[in-house]
Amino acid sequence: MDAVTIKKPKTTALIEELHRLIGRENVLHALEDRICYSYDGSKQKYVPDVVVRPQSTRHVSSTLQFANEHEIPVYPRGAGSGLTGGAVPVKGGIVLDFTQMNHILEIIPEDLTATVEPGVVTQTLQKEVAKYKLFYPPDPASAPFSTIGGNVAECSGGITGLKYGVTRDYILSLEVVLADGSIIHTGRKTLKSVTGYDLTRLFVGSEGTLGIFTQITVKLLPLPEKAETLLVFFAEPQDAVLAANQIISNSLLPRALEFIDKSSIACIKGYKQEIQIPAEVNAILLIDIDGNDTSVKTEVSLIEKIVTENHALMVSSAKNPQERDALWEVRRAISPALYHIAPYKINEDICVPRSQILEMLHRINDINKRYPSLKVASFGHIGDGNIHVNVMYHEGEQQRLLAERMIEEILRNTVKLGGTISGEHGIGNVKSRFLSLEVPPQELQIMKDIKHLLDPKGILNPGKMFLE
Amino acid sequence: MDAVTIKKPKTTALIEELHRLIGRENVLHALEDRICYSYDGSKQKYVPDVVVRPQSTRHVSSTLQFANEHEIPVYPRGAGSGLTGGAVPVKGGIVLDFTQMNHILEIIPEDLTATVEPGVVTQTLQKEVAKYKLFYPPDPASAPFSTIGGNVAECSGGITGLKYGVTRDYILSLEVVLADGSIIHTGRKTLKSVTGYDLTRLFVGSEGTLGIFTQITVKLLPLPEKAETLLVFFAEPQDAVLAANQIISNSLLPRALEFIDKSSIACIKGYKQEIQIPAEVNAILLIDIDGNDTSVKTEVSLIEKIVTENHALMVSSAKNPQERDALWEVRRAISPALYHIAPYKINEDICVPRSQILEMLHRINDINKRYPSLKVASFGHIGDGNIHVNVMYHEGEQQRLLAERMIEEILRNTVKLGGTISGEHGIGNVKSRFLSLEVPPQELQIMKDIKHLLDPKGILNPGKMFLE
Repeated sequence: MDAVTIKKPKTTALIEELHRLIGRENVLHALEDRICYSYDGSKQKYVPDVVVRPQSTRHVSSTLQFANEHEIPVYPRGAGSGLTGGAVPVKGGIVLDFTQMNHILEIIPEDLTATVEPGVVTQTLQKEVAKYKLFYPPDPASAPFSTIGGNVAECSGGITGLKYGVTRDYILSLEVVLADGSIIHTGRKTLKSVTGYDLTRLFVGSEGTLGIFTQITVKLLPLPEKAETLLVFFAEPQDAVLAANQIISNSLLPRALEFIDKSSIACIKGYKQEIQIPAEVNAILLIDIDGNDTSVKTEVSLIEKIVTENHALMVSSAKNPQERDALWEVRRAISPALYHIAPYKINEDICVPRSQILEMLHRINDINKRYPSLKVASFGHIGDGNIHVNVMYHEGEQQRLLAERMIEEILRNTVKLGGTISGEHGIGNVKSRFLSLEVPPQELQIMKDIKHLLDPKGILNPGKMFLE
Repeated sequence: MDAVTIKKPKTTALIEELHRLIGRENVLHALEDRICYSYDGSKQKYVPDVVVRPQSTRHVSSTLQFANEHEIPVYPRGAGSGLTGGAVPVKGGIVLDFTQMNHILEIIPEDLTATVEPGVVTQTLQKEVAKYKLFYPPDPASAPFSTIGGNVAECSGGITGLKYGVTRDYILSLEVVLADGSIIHTGRKTLKSVTGYDLTRLFVGSEGTLGIFTQITVKLLPLPEKAETLLVFFAEPQDAVLAANQIISNSLLPRALEFIDKSSIACIKGYKQEIQIPAEVNAILLIDIDGNDTSVKTEVSLIEKIVTENHALMVSSAKNPQERDALWEVRRAISPALYHIAPYKINEDICVPRSQILEMLHRINDINKRYPSLKVASFGHIGDGNIHVNVMYHEGEQQRLLAERMIEEILRNTVKLGGTISGEHGIGNVKSRFLSLEVPPQELQIMKDIKHLLDPKGILNPGKMFLE
């Protein structure tokens, strides 16, 4: 999986035809360029035959019409930050790089909508709409670099899921180029519409396998007036989990409710000396509360009361953006810090019903005992049951196989507890062999039939989602 | 459309086989029983050959397996309150009456989920979860009698759409019986899941044409601590619309933001003498604000300021449930009151981007001038652009044709303004001839192909959604 396999373009005719269709300046075929498009966040490497950088829907349409005719695989790519291989060209062919189609086409405050091209970086959209006191709630950790197109393709989640839902809840309408190059429009730019089947949400989360988005209309909310952050230390992980449950059972919906476990804390300490975490801390909750001035005040004091009753060792709070950012540094430090345990990481995004979180954490511990050479660190969105389980391993085939076997055990247990093998990263080619753990054969067949209906030649992101 | 056409069962063999499969006590075939199932909220009448009242998923599965084998049409039916003919057996066959499958199977407060059978009345679910301080937000006007199964089939909206979204936003997973009787499960009972294509939302809003729900898992929210209602009178409709826009542009999201126009007000006055509305009132906003004690207080005073600045004539407010109910009586009085203008009504549920509401209301007025014998009353969910346009007409074929012609003009203008021909009622057979006004041929063909994939013999709710 780590070897760079370089495929020669079958023929220069492919490139010449793309030059003619899309313009020479929008087609890359030098090896050094193609290598740049050979990987994504999943750290696999497959070199494409050619890279097309469309500037318009017409470019996408022409490319697909041509590719479909000649049965050339096409891989849409945003920032390439996906964690399940969504953007890697596993069968060679054409990578469609959407970073040039990065325009915010309109923001209509009165309608609470914005229409964007797929290459817009998520945080750019968040910041632009904030200028109008508007709010695009989905907030994956990748928001500073991932694109809306990729977010829609994977149905990204993130830290705001409990209160605000996920990407699919904010997509009103799509312009989609189908495999044969035809351009369709799904949904309407209205807050309600029930006209025919919900094609919009069929495409959301379809990982580039059913069609390629060229315009995306999102629903916005008014920007919450205020936000406050609480960082809470616990000696007992169980207390942290119970406190999180009590917050929600007291009718409070924090904008973020993040859990950090003992192993993750140990990593942060080793990684960033300036983050002060006392020795007795074995679990952390990081909580964002948003709303208007008075509601935030009320909710913060209620939450402080709940965490104190659940034996919190210390509560730090921050009101202004700089201070809040400093508290969030603890959370952001985890991912890079994990590499201090071991150089390789598998980052899973399981999601269980919240009542099963403690049981799931116990099971992960038990499983880990059977793999003593591997380290596990768990953290994530406890509010919606979505936990990032990170299995860390060292160099070598044996370690990798052990890690993969351990992951499979964790995923099997997740499904047994009523959970899902992917809360927010999608399936891609990284998890396609696990899809059948969760999705029964008949449901899987319906999905494949829909795929065949929309992409009969199988040119759209082949090798993803389904095992072949 | 109004004539009762009574079809004889083609053969008593059908009934005998159903007796054997489902039990004699769950099969109705007397004419007087069948007539009870010949209509729905759309006031059409088609008598089915037989009515099956399933008690379990197995009953539904056996019925469908049998029906599919013999190509007998099957019509799922909840409360029969749908407004577009979703439950009328237009081609005879079997009506599946879900009122016996009305059990709340589980409410799990810790997970914020409930699992129910499709025959549960929406308000029953709302009340049961409220006992756990939980909240099922979708709130169609029909909630006191319509069922969750029907709500999911039509993707019901209602008054809470602006703040809380619609039914699709609250459906986590479904048990579905397919046309051939096989039982599938979509989604997971988790707040996040992105495993494979989103089959759940493909079924939501599919109007019983793709599969029949037998279990539904919904997402719940914490019950807002408090709600307050404001009833606001305006002399100028434009002021009411501008006030509504300003409320939202001031980052306020009321739980309900309802608009009532001049004609509707006139009707209410004629219908209920006890509702006091001064002569100079030509528009009303009815606003519900929910949240915690302090946030409601803050938001109510902000909204009072905004409506006053927009020349409100009078603001009444109500805090306790009885008083709130009294203010909502104004809204509830509209529908029955409309029949005082004329005995026949077509109730449309168009939805436009909110910035187009004033233009849409102007266009409706202009169109009405060309149909002077018809009366139009508009009211509805101005917060999300979803306006109920009611065209009232008198006895006689000519009047009916005029009304239908006028509706078509209104729908064409809705689509021109970027709106949708159905915000919440669905298509059924009542609007199927208008579907192509909004959905282009290729998108329509994809929908039909999906229908064919899941129901190749076309036995599920035939004659609905698509023109044949």
